[in-house]
Amino acid sequence: MKQSLGAKPLMFPTPVLMVGTYDETGKPNLMNAAWGGICCSQPPCVAVSLRAARHTYGNIVARNAFTVGIACESRMAEADFVGMVSGRDVDKFAVAGLTAVRSELVDAPYAAEFPVVLECRLLQVVEIGVHDQFIGEILDVKADRDVLEPDGLPDILRISPLAYDPAHKGYHGIGPLLGKAFSVGKGIQG
Amino acid sequence: MKQSLGAKPLMFPTPVLMVGTYDETGKPNLMNAAWGGICCSQPPCVAVSLRAARHTYGNIVARNAFTVGIACESRMAEADFVGMVSGRDVDKFAVAGLTAVRSELVDAPYAAEFPVVLECRLLQVVEIGVHDQFIGEILDVKADRDVLEPDGLPDILRISPLAYDPAHKGYHGIGPLLGKAFSVGKGIQG
Repeated sequence: MKQSLGAKPLMFPTPVLMVGTYDETGKPNLMNAAWGGICCSQPPCVAVSLRAARHTYGNIVARNAFTVGIACESRMAEADFVGMVSGRDVDKFAVAGLTAVRSELVDAPYAAEFPVVLECRLLQVVEIGVHDQFIGEILDVKADRDVLEPDGLPDILRISPLAYDPAHKGYHGIGPLLGKAFSVGKGIQG
Repeated sequence: MKQSLGAKPLMFPTPVLMVGTYDETGKPNLMNAAWGGICCSQPPCVAVSLRAARHTYGNIVARNAFTVGIACESRMAEADFVGMVSGRDVDKFAVAGLTAVRSELVDAPYAAEFPVVLECRLLQVVEIGVHDQFIGEILDVKADRDVLEPDGLPDILRISPLAYDPAHKGYHGIGPLLGKAFSVGKGIQG
């Protein structure tokens, strides 16, 4: 018998996404979002949900663009910091010592210090409730060379992405490989 | 300098979601989805993306309901199995030895063996590309008592959720707490 916890936004794990935008003055901004995920394989798309009050919300609407960086263990403090203050009040890149890089594909910046970034063109805004969801087409994924495997794809353990626990507001790391998909289930074939 | 990997659906980590539905005959079905996440806090909502060809797609549309279980380390083989076969061909609950529990809130089942489940009423279907996105309002979260903390919320380490690496199709565990959100960033206040 399971116990009822009520209607709550819980999922395990959620990602720690660094959403990069330019504001109306051209100042780069970065926010921390856990409400998001991949939402389509072709075209490759990512969804990120934001409250309308967020500085980033207006920035995305104005420029039709954003980036999504993958927060990592070595930059946990910076990732948390950009979720604690507003870009209306603070130049978060400057205060956190992060390097803003202008995307060559979309009108948005990203922080060089996070190992993987998705460059996104806004496709749709889906109104839901206190959060609206921004669906962006991923025009390119860029990664630091030192996280890449010989096959050209990133190694999740070298990225060392943060995972967020929305129940107790904690950042966790990712453990070692436990099994391969489309493989460990083969033993169950009836 | 980051290296371009091309337009790909990559994110780190993604969740391993067990989407529960009834089909037109009333047979319970479960599928494995990594394209999803929380998309709104109020009303609490979860988004899961599915290809139109999936058995689960028609099931959700017909019943306006689904559940989302959180796959865990101890049930990795079962979680992988339900992603390898179609409910059109196989009674996945029976073959995997999973126990279908009928939700009392929505017209969908869940597997008792996964420690946390979200019971969802379909709110919106968002057409994107090869995947459409199903947004469900979370009417309740249910959890096994042995994963709950004294505060009534689940302990992510007792859930031991799987994290999926879409680059190399691997299942990983979640590591220990590295830091608390809205806290570890305080040292950076400018």
